[in-house]
Amino acid sequence: MKNYLKHDEWCIIEEGFHREYNEITESVCSLGNGRMGQRGNFEETFTGKTLQGNYVAGVYYPDKTRVGWWKNGYPEYFAKVLNAANWIGIKVEIDGEELDLNRCEVADFRRVLNMREGYLERSFIATLASGKQIKVYTKRFNSIVDDESGALSYSITPLNFDGKLILTPFIDGDIKNKDANYDEKFWDEIHRETAFAEGYIELRTKKTGFHVVTGQKFEILQDGKSVDFQSFPIKAEKYVASQVSLDVISGQETTLIKYACNLSSENYAIEELLPAAKAYLAKVSAKGYDKMLAEQAEKWISKWHINDIVIEGDVAAQQGIRFNIFQLNQTYSGEDARLNIGPKGFTGEKYGGSTYWDTEAYCIPFYMATSDAQVARNLLVYRWKQLGRAIENAGKLGFKDGAALYPMVTMNGEECHNEWEITFEEIHRNGAIAYAIYDYINYTDDKSYLAEYGFEVLLGIARFWAQRVNWSIAKKQYVMLGVTGPNEYENNVNNNWYTSYIAVWCLKYAKEVAEYIKSTDSARYAELVDVLNLNEEAEFGKFQHIIDNMYLAEDKELGIYLQQDGFLDKELIQVKDLAASERPINQKWSWDRILRSCFIKQADVLQGIYFFEDDFDIDTIRRNYDFYEPMTVHESSLSPCVHSIIAAKLGDKPRSYEFYQRSARLDLDDYNNDTEDGLHITSMAGTWMSVIKGFGGMRVRGGQVHLNPFVPENWKSFAFKIRFRNNILNIITTSDNVTIENLEGGDITINVGTEAYQVKTASSVVVALGETELV
Amino acid sequence: MKNYLKHDEWCIIEEGFHREYNEITESVCSLGNGRMGQRGNFEETFTGKTLQGNYVAGVYYPDKTRVGWWKNGYPEYFAKVLNAANWIGIKVEIDGEELDLNRCEVADFRRVLNMREGYLERSFIATLASGKQIKVYTKRFNSIVDDESGALSYSITPLNFDGKLILTPFIDGDIKNKDANYDEKFWDEIHRETAFAEGYIELRTKKTGFHVVTGQKFEILQDGKSVDFQSFPIKAEKYVASQVSLDVISGQETTLIKYACNLSSENYAIEELLPAAKAYLAKVSAKGYDKMLAEQAEKWISKWHINDIVIEGDVAAQQGIRFNIFQLNQTYSGEDARLNIGPKGFTGEKYGGSTYWDTEAYCIPFYMATSDAQVARNLLVYRWKQLGRAIENAGKLGFKDGAALYPMVTMNGEECHNEWEITFEEIHRNGAIAYAIYDYINYTDDKSYLAEYGFEVLLGIARFWAQRVNWSIAKKQYVMLGVTGPNEYENNVNNNWYTSYIAVWCLKYAKEVAEYIKSTDSARYAELVDVLNLNEEAEFGKFQHIIDNMYLAEDKELGIYLQQDGFLDKELIQVKDLAASERPINQKWSWDRILRSCFIKQADVLQGIYFFEDDFDIDTIRRNYDFYEPMTVHESSLSPCVHSIIAAKLGDKPRSYEFYQRSARLDLDDYNNDTEDGLHITSMAGTWMSVIKGFGGMRVRGGQVHLNPFVPENWKSFAFKIRFRNNILNIITTSDNVTIENLEGGDITINVGTEAYQVKTASSVVVALGETELV
Repeated sequence: MKNYLKHDEWCIIEEGFHREYNEITESVCSLGNGRMGQRGNFEETFTGKTLQGNYVAGVYYPDKTRVGWWKNGYPEYFAKVLNAANWIGIKVEIDGEELDLNRCEVADFRRVLNMREGYLERSFIATLASGKQIKVYTKRFNSIVDDESGALSYSITPLNFDGKLILTPFIDGDIKNKDANYDEKFWDEIHRETAFAEGYIELRTKKTGFHVVTGQKFEILQDGKSVDFQSFPIKAEKYVASQVSLDVISGQETTLIKYACNLSSENYAIEELLPAAKAYLAKVSAKGYDKMLAEQAEKWISKWHINDIVIEGDVAAQQGIRFNIFQLNQTYSGEDARLNIGPKGFTGEKYGGSTYWDTEAYCIPFYMATSDAQVARNLLVYRWKQLGRAIENAGKLGFKDGAALYPMVTMNGEECHNEWEITFEEIHRNGAIAYAIYDYINYTDDKSYLAEYGFEVLLGIARFWAQRVNWSIAKKQYVMLGVTGPNEYENNVNNNWYTSYIAVWCLKYAKEVAEYIKSTDSARYAELVDVLNLNEEAEFGKFQHIIDNMYLAEDKELGIYLQQDGFLDKELIQVKDLAASERPINQKWSWDRILRSCFIKQADVLQGIYFFEDDFDIDTIRRNYDFYEPMTVHESSLSPCVHSIIAAKLGDKPRSYEFYQRSARLDLDDYNNDTEDGLHITSMAGTWMSVIKGFGGMRVRGGQVHLNPFVPENWKSFAFKIRFRNNILNIITTSDNVTIENLEGGDITINVGTEAYQVKTASSVVVALGETELV
Repeated sequence: MKNYLKHDEWCIIEEGFHREYNEITESVCSLGNGRMGQRGNFEETFTGKTLQGNYVAGVYYPDKTRVGWWKNGYPEYFAKVLNAANWIGIKVEIDGEELDLNRCEVADFRRVLNMREGYLERSFIATLASGKQIKVYTKRFNSIVDDESGALSYSITPLNFDGKLILTPFIDGDIKNKDANYDEKFWDEIHRETAFAEGYIELRTKKTGFHVVTGQKFEILQDGKSVDFQSFPIKAEKYVASQVSLDVISGQETTLIKYACNLSSENYAIEELLPAAKAYLAKVSAKGYDKMLAEQAEKWISKWHINDIVIEGDVAAQQGIRFNIFQLNQTYSGEDARLNIGPKGFTGEKYGGSTYWDTEAYCIPFYMATSDAQVARNLLVYRWKQLGRAIENAGKLGFKDGAALYPMVTMNGEECHNEWEITFEEIHRNGAIAYAIYDYINYTDDKSYLAEYGFEVLLGIARFWAQRVNWSIAKKQYVMLGVTGPNEYENNVNNNWYTSYIAVWCLKYAKEVAEYIKSTDSARYAELVDVLNLNEEAEFGKFQHIIDNMYLAEDKELGIYLQQDGFLDKELIQVKDLAASERPINQKWSWDRILRSCFIKQADVLQGIYFFEDDFDIDTIRRNYDFYEPMTVHESSLSPCVHSIIAAKLGDKPRSYEFYQRSARLDLDDYNNDTEDGLHITSMAGTWMSVIKGFGGMRVRGGQVHLNPFVPENWKSFAFKIRFRNNILNIITTSDNVTIENLEGGDITINVGTEAYQVKTASSVVVALGETELV
């Protein structure tokens, strides 16, 4: 846990250069626009601690899998997020001395991520070995308006000398992934080209053959005015640069404005890439840096208009929640159904693949409530596009006849993970993918999705479950053997309640959706029956038999669902009785000890209760919460949010807030000592859910918004904006009341506690908060 | 399954050169003397398919562990068997053409492993590209008399020319392990030296710092007479050679006799290694090749005198069983308690480490019955020596107070395996190590072992079990969670019956042994209590509480023990109903599918019944056998023997023989397509057990030998010799009767079926075999 970043409502501020934390700050200060992004690296050379990282969405490399012991079914290759060409680079030399903050005295250092307007700025005074002092000011952004480009300004002012300044803006494509399995470089050079103050590199990924052209174009200003200059081209393997030599005088500010673009063959024909890149840079440079920056600010502010959560009375919390919202928006803009939400976004390369069940379980609610419905829809379509691969994937494990198992981690639909207990057994992910369809329909009422795409996915998943269970002669019920639930601190267990419950739910929902399509669009239904080779009677009959006869582990005496068979054989210890020196157990204990302990990594039974809460009465929820939470170590960043929401539902406000706090500033405070690898993007959506579904108590039931809000004790108030179908609402909660502002859209009914309120267009309703009943 | 080796009672014969199978034949023709060994490689250059392998017992390298996903507790390094300097090498050139069987015509090729006398010979006629023909005859052995040396003779006769023959005998230490995790070479050169017809290399292993001096000394004969020659030294990195140029004439035989030695710092002070090697070669070369060879034959023949199994009426079976006995004797001679029985012996390098539970469960019975008691004792002492490491190993998994967990695989006591489900959970190995002590005492009556060494090991193991179980409030019994039983097609199960049963047995036996020592040697007992920090009351009280309250899974209705909790939830299919195309399942199915299937890799419940058969009535044994065997795929080479023995006990002679056959010629016929990696040494002991304990029905009960023999249908008779305490017995079984010859030792009582027979010194008893009752 670190505390060197300044608390501020809108900015992340590093004051004074924290060399030792530089990789953490780089992660935190990452920029992205959904298409490309990079870590908060310095533009100039830096020989200190740094993890250089530039990423282009959708471009990956299938690295040869590395394992200790091979198991049949492991993927031979798996997709890695690629570290791509560095376009921010500028080599800075002053009278032959190179600027490098690792090798000079640094004063007045300040690095600021401005989340309101979407840029990163940095200023400092450097004293070189020679004693020469310069003042530097930089600003950089990845444009969300022109989203294949970024721009930066880099200003240098000599403070105590006149001299020769050499600036060498470059693009360096000679990049290696830190996590390459065999120390291989993944890029080949196709082309390099320079022109006056301009340069391009075209690289191609090995094996996958993605082409990416990265270009730069720059101009120089002195004291704010454009100047003429000469530019000497420098080329090397996967590298282009232009060297500019300038005479500078003390007090005079020289500014290099650099425009850059990343165009990939995902969006252009290969032969058009280079001309398109040139045209792109011509366009953005004609628009100009100031205009780009102004548009950037405008678009970010408009995003905040419907994304923001305003917390009064707690600056740290305010900063934390905005940071989460900002990073989620930087990672995924929702315009491209081929993309998804990488667990590290554009902030690091630690995990292979980009798509986990995190997307469906944690991220979709955020995007549904803060963006146009199309964004969440695209996330669903992403899985539909990969259905064929999911069927192939299931085939590798022996399933057939259209059964689909979505991979644990993926980029292109193929599995990117290879621990058998996860890859082959953590199959509940399939359930979350189905659940997200339900969640989306429930939230948006976009039922057209079901016939168009949804049912195909639902049926593939349902078919998987129907084959995955088996009839137990001993239990005279269906059982599900050999699974790993969301609690990865149990492996290869039998009858994990969560997995079995969601499996049954999937079967029910697939049948229900089939009925719906049949009754509303019989032609499309007939088409689907045909395309999917669906034998309604046999398959739905089997589904129903499983629904009616599935074994769901429970202990009637304790009144709880059993995480899995045999859970009560464990030594049941509470986390509070575990010595601090033993935690986190995933660092202190051997794996077998973790497995046979009762300790739970993240919500498992409670994840099911969270998803399907209306299936359970409040006493059942409380008994399960009271039983499992005390044994939960929350060693996944995805754990606290679910507990925060359930605690809120149970009226346990202090615990709800406590859980919220565990994830709210996870990266800003480097809570788990791993922020240097990149940010925990998907868990940020969980934090957002803690506020909206936890403190706000928001649910959608029967097509209406239901609220049940409270203000955490140390806050004065909090307000969140959400889109709900055609409305934009602002919900402001104080300790006394909740105000519902209907900002956009027609009249709407909003439920607070057990009462329904009509909120007319462009007006608001204030509801006093008493001791509302739990609902 | 291959069938290119000729059936012969005493020899393994390859007639005609089977290039494509050369690596298999190399494995089969491996030579060893317990201290060193090598694969059946050619002496001269061979550019075809070959796996060059030379091994020196006890010399290992801790290779950096390689895993896909790290788990706490994995060993950072693990010991690998080292491929060592090649001492057999001779470069052969004829008028400038190099002899290489891959690049010339080969006729009359014959490679013969003579098991009776312990050597490998080879003859062929090669026609070089030039048309020149030579006849070659070679013979090689690793001396079991002078067991740090080997010798070879290499004879060449020109058939159709006179010319220049250049022979370059060499030692090549520039060797890489095929299975190196990071392509590293594990040896550094310390010294190289040549003299006339002599050369030495001293190598040191990286990290472990073992020194090995490999030396050669040679002489040349023509037409059987020693000749004078000049020898030109050649030296290179890790390489020494002597080049000899000879004029040869058609029909004249030139023979190179090469003596070699491997001396290691395990047995000599480092500074003495080189002089000792020189002295060693001086000694053996003075003795001379012919005498060495004669002594080799004599000693092997004397070994066979008490090791042999004679089968009449089935040459293939005869060859198979002798091959197994031969290889076991080549691998481990039992003189050095620091050594053990590697799963591949000196025949390959496939597995890291040398010691598995195979030693205790399968090999010790062989060595007890065929060698001096000291040999088995040394195998037990090996584990005693590693007790400290086993305690450390348990410590890594959170155990304390002297609890010992022996590693799954080891060389020096440290764990050499890293799959969590095996390394951390296949803990039943601890039970087998305790069981072997019991087995040894039962067989040899050497009770002194208990006070001297055995109890310390037993207590460490018992302490482990006492900490490994936990009290289940649900069951009101002790349970054992998260284990992998001998059936590795189940991972991380609860209450594996075999593991729990042997754990309880260990607790009982440890207490029993404590009582025995206390009552027979109270001074030593007091010493042990002190050294082991034993709190008798508390610890033995805990042991007894577990013994009295351990949960052992069973199904009373079916009358079977349950392999583990939940086994009956599986879909219970029989192997016979599995399509041939689906087998072996470990190659055809993904791991999760294997795990949730009912299919069993090797004896698990039946392994327990085999170890503790007197605990169970015959009906119980039959019910368990009838239940589990049909679901057993026997995809471990250790599986069939246990089933063969139990089938024999149940009177199912055809099945007993069928199981025997599955392992008897496993390597000779390359049954599993993996003999090229080396031989399955430890399973050879299992095959031996099938004959002695299966067909012979031999048991030791109450200090007496019990027999219950039958002859498999296609055999006329079989005879096996065993040592039992002070006697050497020969047991000859025909379909009519069994003859018990008391070859050495005093009068002895032998039980056949339910009757006891007195067999006087140097006499024999013949017992007619009727339909004996099952016992």
